[in-house]
Amino acid sequence: MPEPVITMDGWYVLHDFRTMDWTSWKYASAEERQQAIQEFQALMETFETKEDNREGSHAIYTIVGQKADLMMMILRPTMEELNEIETAFNKSKLAEFMTPAYSYVSVIELSNYMGGDQNPEDPEIEGRLKPKLPKWEHVCFYPMDKRRQGNDNWYVLEKDERAKLMYEHGMTGRQYAGKIRQFISGSIGFDDWEWGVTLFAHDVLQFKKLVYEMRFDEVTSRYGDFGSFFIGNLLTKEKAETFFEA
Amino acid sequence: MPEPVITMDGWYVLHDFRTMDWTSWKYASAEERQQAIQEFQALMETFETKEDNREGSHAIYTIVGQKADLMMMILRPTMEELNEIETAFNKSKLAEFMTPAYSYVSVIELSNYMGGDQNPEDPEIEGRLKPKLPKWEHVCFYPMDKRRQGNDNWYVLEKDERAKLMYEHGMTGRQYAGKIRQFISGSIGFDDWEWGVTLFAHDVLQFKKLVYEMRFDEVTSRYGDFGSFFIGNLLTKEKAETFFEA
Amino acid sequence: MPEPVITMDGWYVLHDFRTMDWTSWKYASAEERQQAIQEFQALMETFETKEDNREGSHAIYTIVGQKADLMMMILRPTMEELNEIETAFNKSKLAEFMTPAYSYVSVIELSNYMGGDQNPEDPEIEGRLKPKLPKWEHVCFYPMDKRRQGNDNWYVLEKDERAKLMYEHGMTGRQYAGKIRQFISGSIGFDDWEWGVTLFAHDVLQFKKLVYEMRFDEVTSRYGDFGSFFIGNLLTKEKAETFFEA
Amino acid sequence: MPEPVITMDGWYVLHDFRTMDWTSWKYASAEERQQAIQEFQALMETFETKEDNREGSHAIYTIVGQKADLMMMILRPTMEELNEIETAFNKSKLAEFMTPAYSYVSVIELSNYMGGDQNPEDPEIEGRLKPKLPKWEHVCFYPMDKRRQGNDNWYVLEKDERAKLMYEHGMTGRQYAGKIRQFISGSIGFDDWEWGVTLFAHDVLQFKKLVYEMRFDEVTSRYGDFGSFFIGNLLTKEKAETFFEA
Amino acid sequence: MPEPVITMDGWYVLHDFRTMDWTSWKYASAEERQQAIQEFQALMETFETKEDNREGSHAIYTIVGQKADLMMMILRPTMEELNEIETAFNKSKLAEFMTPAYSYVSVIELSNYMGGDQNPEDPEIEGRLKPKLPKWEHVCFYPMDKRRQGNDNWYVLEKDERAKLMYEHGMTGRQYAGKIRQFISGSIGFDDWEWGVTLFAHDVLQFKKLVYEMRFDEVTSRYGDFGSFFIGNLLTKEKAETFFEA
Repeated sequence: MPEPVITMDGWYVLHDFRTMDWTSWKYASAEERQQAIQEFQALMETFETKEDNREGSHAIYTIVGQKADLMMMILRPTMEELNEIETAFNKSKLAEFMTPAYSYVSVIELSNYMGGDQNPEDPEIEGRLKPKLPKWEHVCFYPMDKRRQGNDNWYVLEKDERAKLMYEHGMTGRQYAGKIRQFISGSIGFDDWEWGVTLFAHDVLQFKKLVYEMRFDEVTSRYGDFGSFFIGNLLTKEKAETFFEA
Repeated sequence: MPEPVITMDGWYVLHDFRTMDWTSWKYASAEERQQAIQEFQALMETFETKEDNREGSHAIYTIVGQKADLMMMILRPTMEELNEIETAFNKSKLAEFMTPAYSYVSVIELSNYMGGDQNPEDPEIEGRLKPKLPKWEHVCFYPMDKRRQGNDNWYVLEKDERAKLMYEHGMTGRQYAGKIRQFISGSIGFDDWEWGVTLFAHDVLQFKKLVYEMRFDEVTSRYGDFGSFFIGNLLTKEKAETFFEA
Repeated sequence: MPEPVITMDGWYVLHDFRTMDWTSWKYASAEERQQAIQEFQALMETFETKEDNREGSHAIYTIVGQKADLMMMILRPTMEELNEIETAFNKSKLAEFMTPAYSYVSVIELSNYMGGDQNPEDPEIEGRLKPKLPKWEHVCFYPMDKRRQGNDNWYVLEKDERAKLMYEHGMTGRQYAGKIRQFISGSIGFDDWEWGVTLFAHDVLQFKKLVYEMRFDEVTSRYGDFGSFFIGNLLTKEKAETFFEA
Repeated sequence: MPEPVITMDGWYVLHDFRTMDWTSWKYASAEERQQAIQEFQALMETFETKEDNREGSHAIYTIVGQKADLMMMILRPTMEELNEIETAFNKSKLAEFMTPAYSYVSVIELSNYMGGDQNPEDPEIEGRLKPKLPKWEHVCFYPMDKRRQGNDNWYVLEKDERAKLMYEHGMTGRQYAGKIRQFISGSIGFDDWEWGVTLFAHDVLQFKKLVYEMRFDEVTSRYGDFGSFFIGNLLTKEKAETFFEA
Repeated sequence: MPEPVITMDGWYVLHDFRTMDWTSWKYASAEERQQAIQEFQALMETFETKEDNREGSHAIYTIVGQKADLMMMILRPTMEELNEIETAFNKSKLAEFMTPAYSYVSVIELSNYMGGDQNPEDPEIEGRLKPKLPKWEHVCFYPMDKRRQGNDNWYVLEKDERAKLMYEHGMTGRQYAGKIRQFISGSIGFDDWEWGVTLFAHDVLQFKKLVYEMRFDEVTSRYGDFGSFFIGNLLTKEKAETFFEA
């Protein structure tokens, strides 16, 4: 049996996608809409306090196309907190005007194929396990599997072989340093795919360039299976005003 | 034709996942909500009596993410009782505020690949066939198949080969003794996958570690196909109060 | 081109699965519910008359889990009658409280791999082509295909080879004589799978034992593809009263 | 690159499947229902005039099972006319009581694997390209692909090989002359499958016999992939009265 | 690792498909419908101004069959503009009578397999990266992948081999010059397929001819996987009047 790689795991992650019912929103009274927005702002403030206290992090983006209108990506130290946050949001006024579109449950993961000691309490490592998400202009999220199909079966490869393939893959990614920030979260046992990938960029085209280029890495061409891709734009406070305008 | 393995079968199992319609719940009168909660508590008490009398068992968890809000896992000696319980729940006040999200029908199963005599009336065996489900902090449920695809076809392997692969798989699981409790329920002929797997843990991260590590077992890497994964937190009496708060 | 096997075909079959909207049912007036139940009883009586006259047969079961609440399996000499029955049911009071869950259209089929003369007018054969469905405690329904995939392609096997595999398969089934009654209905050209399989048992566990054991038959392990499995309990007149209680 | 076969293409085809909302229909006033029926009859009369003038053709069938209640199959010289007809129907009174169930867009197609001159203006050919659909008792519709999968890839076969396989296939079909009328419509570039197949028969069982027998033709066993099968009964004027009765 | 090909990327593209709720539309007041149409016309005028100023382009077509009623294809220099346009449309009066049917997010892409210098600021290249969409009578849209499956894996082919296959493919397409205009937009990292293909034609049959003929190109027969096909007719100002008539 091939040897698994040791992972270090950090904060739990909920990607929560919602679709607005714009017709109901428009027909709601100005007071109702105001209440919904204020509750949402108050929630965002609690999120920001958590982030400032390094007790979690979050990212709020509008999604392009009909898959969803809004994505909330929320990081917390426990699975219970994620559950409480989504229930609280479900009970909020704004949620009355939204329907669930997609969600994904995972945990920030670092895998150490290179070997060598890595200490999760090392500040650099800890910063990656409990990250502050960047507030860059664009987000790209997709879930993925390592393929187990006929001769293309990742899980029968020896660790050395997997390490080599992952190393090459990392080299491709490294060319995008400064252009793209990547967060890998593991979801084996938590959700329907094995990993979630969340990318942030200032220039949305970089997502396409990176994911296209990586498709030729053997780790992807032979061993990568992908779910839906979600692409979004940062919902700044200013944009939120326009977004929620009836 | 390869020889099937003998199984012992215990209580029938219904996993019943529901999604709350929180908006309707909020707009219901306090009396209606109170009635719904009281009926649900009364139902839970009948469940507990059954469990105390060793006539069944159950586990109630909230689910993280949009797949569902609540999971009721119910064990009973007969398929009729499961049917009666779900119908009774469907007619309850609380069900007026819920929509079905997913369900799974199976029966607790022990398979004896090792050979040797196993007597279903042996108290240790009986305890495993008619188990009292732990009330641990977290649950993980997923259905699965043994693959029948090209060269990766579990059902053409001889029993000895299958026993060897299952033994190795069991060794991986054994390392999680005390950390994870695992319940296998068979569903061939009952539902769309061949088995259901229900795991309980104090530390939710152990699910990911176990399921990830097992993915490298040949029985999984070449022969495992998986359905959706549901992850949840125990709904204690205290948490139920918060959960059902409008 | 491999030679097809000759089939004999009997009554047409509609499996009709419905889900109750229990909330609407509860909020309906007692008069409405009474009317719905009486119409349903009257329909059942026409079914029973047909069955007594050997002009058809039927079976009514409640389904376990969220896939459906009720299954009506109806056999008639013509496709038109099935169409008329479903339309009549759709217009009935009870149907106002139900939503369609699944349906399957097929025709009772006997295939003669063994050769030898079989006369559809022979009373024993006719009884199998136009059967009276047993009113046993449990039902199991699933649709299936013979696989056509890479090296596992049923339809390129010669008739002799197929006959041998079907014979072995029959031997497995024969061990369940008296425990399970099996009805095969062909649906090539009628519905999305090639056959429907309907099993009846007194002991629901026998379904799992049979379907599990058969999975090791080469005809299944290499050539069987399955749809959804539906499992149900007989809706007796007594049980119907409880079932329809608001 | 294997040589494509030349096709001749005739009238455009819309298969339009609808499900009745029988509860709304029953609760509509007699006047509303009457209006709906009269509009539908008027539409049918315009269809019949078109058919009489050889400017199109149509077939109206009720569908067995829950996939749909009604199928309208409409042939017209242009894609625009199909679009106009469906929009007109969508705006009709009857459509208020129906929901879309499935649709298929294609064009009547003759392929000439045999070679030899075929002139689309030859009256026999023209009659097949712009056919008057038979009003036989039963219809069977299904979409299909030629498989492109591993070693079973239709589109890498040379034209001669494809012609040979199609010829054998045609021989199977020829045995059903007089029992089944078959209309092939091409949909590559128009809809999700490559062809639609519409069969008409007096005896519904002939569909099963034909499609079953053809499954052993190499062109099907190795190269055929199928979508959903729809089976229906002719909606005559007399039957329409009963069908639309509330 | 095979070398990726360099792409040039132009305007971002949103394909937005909607289904009309014709019953609600009919029951709306004439004033409401008038308001909806006027808002839509005003939106179209802003689109036309953008197009005249070469700040974007668009195409509006009605869709044949039940997949959708309307397709808006919108090109803009930034992803944010696409997001703003869809949100504005969602808040419009017309959107109250529509439901989302499908959407696709991509970016106009030119790939340079032939090598040689191509300058995105060259006027001919720029015109293809920031095109004015033709207002031809018919549209065909479908998303596609290059296959990664067993021996048919596009992404393990060397660049030379891929270039050769793409060249042959281009030769097939070239025969349709003047009959079909083709726009390729890349969506790796943006949506669920790797490319979107949008074709325009005066004669709708040319779509079928082209896509059928291309299916025999090795790049398609072995390496092409396709999503849903949408086929539509140009919504001219005159046709819009009829289309929106209640």
